[in-house]
Amino acid sequence: MSKDLAGQGLLARVDEFLGDELQAVERILRAELASSNPYVRDVFAHVTRFRGKRLRPMLLLLSASAGGAVTEEHRVLAAVVEMIHTATLVHDDVLDEADTRRHVATVNARWNNETSVLFGDYLFTHAFHLAASLESTQACRLIGRATNIVCEGELSQIRERGNLELSEESYLRIIEAKTAELCALCCRLGGDYSGADEAVVSSLEQYGRSLGIAFQIADDLLDLVGTERETGKTLGTDLEKQKLTLPLIRLLSRASESEAGRIRNLLSRPNAQSRAALMPSLEQSGAIEYAVRRAGGFATAASGHLDGVADCPGKEILIEMAEFAVRRAS
Amino acid sequence: MSKDLAGQGLLARVDEFLGDELQAVERILRAELASSNPYVRDVFAHVTRFRGKRLRPMLLLLSASAGGAVTEEHRVLAAVVEMIHTATLVHDDVLDEADTRRHVATVNARWNNETSVLFGDYLFTHAFHLAASLESTQACRLIGRATNIVCEGELSQIRERGNLELSEESYLRIIEAKTAELCALCCRLGGDYSGADEAVVSSLEQYGRSLGIAFQIADDLLDLVGTERETGKTLGTDLEKQKLTLPLIRLLSRASESEAGRIRNLLSRPNAQSRAALMPSLEQSGAIEYAVRRAGGFATAASGHLDGVADCPGKEILIEMAEFAVRRAS
Repeated sequence: MSKDLAGQGLLARVDEFLGDELQAVERILRAELASSNPYVRDVFAHVTRFRGKRLRPMLLLLSASAGGAVTEEHRVLAAVVEMIHTATLVHDDVLDEADTRRHVATVNARWNNETSVLFGDYLFTHAFHLAASLESTQACRLIGRATNIVCEGELSQIRERGNLELSEESYLRIIEAKTAELCALCCRLGGDYSGADEAVVSSLEQYGRSLGIAFQIADDLLDLVGTERETGKTLGTDLEKQKLTLPLIRLLSRASESEAGRIRNLLSRPNAQSRAALMPSLEQSGAIEYAVRRAGGFATAASGHLDGVADCPGKEILIEMAEFAVRRAS
Repeated sequence: MSKDLAGQGLLARVDEFLGDELQAVERILRAELASSNPYVRDVFAHVTRFRGKRLRPMLLLLSASAGGAVTEEHRVLAAVVEMIHTATLVHDDVLDEADTRRHVATVNARWNNETSVLFGDYLFTHAFHLAASLESTQACRLIGRATNIVCEGELSQIRERGNLELSEESYLRIIEAKTAELCALCCRLGGDYSGADEAVVSSLEQYGRSLGIAFQIADDLLDLVGTERETGKTLGTDLEKQKLTLPLIRLLSRASESEAGRIRNLLSRPNAQSRAALMPSLEQSGAIEYAVRRAGGFATAASGHLDGVADCPGKEILIEMAEFAVRRAS
């Protein structure tokens, strides 16, 4: 079965199980962002075209289901996390100076950097406002904390740009903060608001954290070895920005001194041919295979965290998602 | 008395009355932002040098005092609004491509745009996290809503850039959203958390809204007619970005057709001489005087809103602040 079909099979299962809930989330999003300002409406309508898989609402709703049952609070929170994720995408595109995302022009390419910055801020603040509509401050606290960690992770990533000595440990710490924290948040919120025991909520949160790490390793791998047709994104942006990711960190750590010198030399002067020039070394050294294996390890760990959660369709799909996180990049 | 001395006199009074409280706010800010990430600490230490007058914490604490008494919740909220204001400053400097603010290099000039975007996000999310540490969701709701309106106002401003037909009404709507909303929020939070009657809280909020409008008209005026030495900012950025402000809107609305054509022509091709070239028309037409008068009208209205608030030192200083808002630009 091709990767695309595998992905479609998973999406079809999610849709069968959660379709109505996801549509309810979509209605909340649209209602919330049907702003009186036509400019905001235009930008949001455009952004909707690249929001993609709705991974975070899915994680939240599946965790809710695995923890007990989906409630209206979960639907609101799913809209909140999707808004936050979209805000980070819009700001990321400013940072990456990317032109396309999911085959659609980014906000900064279609409008300008200013609009991207402000529209991201608009989504952030709207998300917090919506989270504050719930009865307790619990969600606001968790969301405030997690999003703050995400920003810190992104700042660390920028600080480490051009650091061609970045260690695997530092890389993992950065992606845990910038990506896995939000996945962990989604799963925790799902469990928390379903009234599950703290042990179950904590297992779900750990699942989300490991899944997020697996996902980001796979995403970084695709930026290096994927095709633009498959991913719908501008690729090679990590190389261009001298952001070291797992395959290169592995390659450099295992290469002879002279080989490592040659590779660092290539990395320090990125151009349109960099990806192709690095590919033979990446493949022959087993660095790509290593990254796939590491992603697989985190995916397995993710599923393992669910051992203490009672079997149910929600849990089954969460396990399938962990498998898919890695399969799409292998 | 010179403008500077008048401003220093006001600051001295605020300091005498609120010095301990403002220092407590500063301690909260420092403790909150003493992040484990050294990069965040560096950027924050730098930003602290241009945060300036602490206008928003002052408004919040003075309103608290006028509404009843300053509590620990007020100090936390004052730190929250200062973080939010700083976040908008850091993002504004990306938008304006400004090099200096209060005689200090902006974050984007000292580091880069990416750091500015992410550090602004870091401050936003940290502010929400801190607001969520209070018992009720009231502050989160008010802060979420107000900051969302601020972003919408900033987006409207960008959409209207280059619109040389902008009306006074649209201009006022934009500055009410982008500036006055946050001032109104500060005053409302001050009153709300001091246990004052809704009538008093609402009066304080209206004071903040009118004050914010007066302040922004004066700020825009300074961008046009101030000196960089006085203001410590890169000036003329509004002209450069084709952002029409009150004196120019007034000038265009009163000029003959041929004169308006000549001015729009100048405005559509901004350069380093634009400010000087526009000055004679701005002065002779009375457009500058008109803007000063309008700012004065809003300042008077601000003080008028406090009629129903019992006389007390907090109220007195709020009235002085309204007077100063305009005096510094007249």
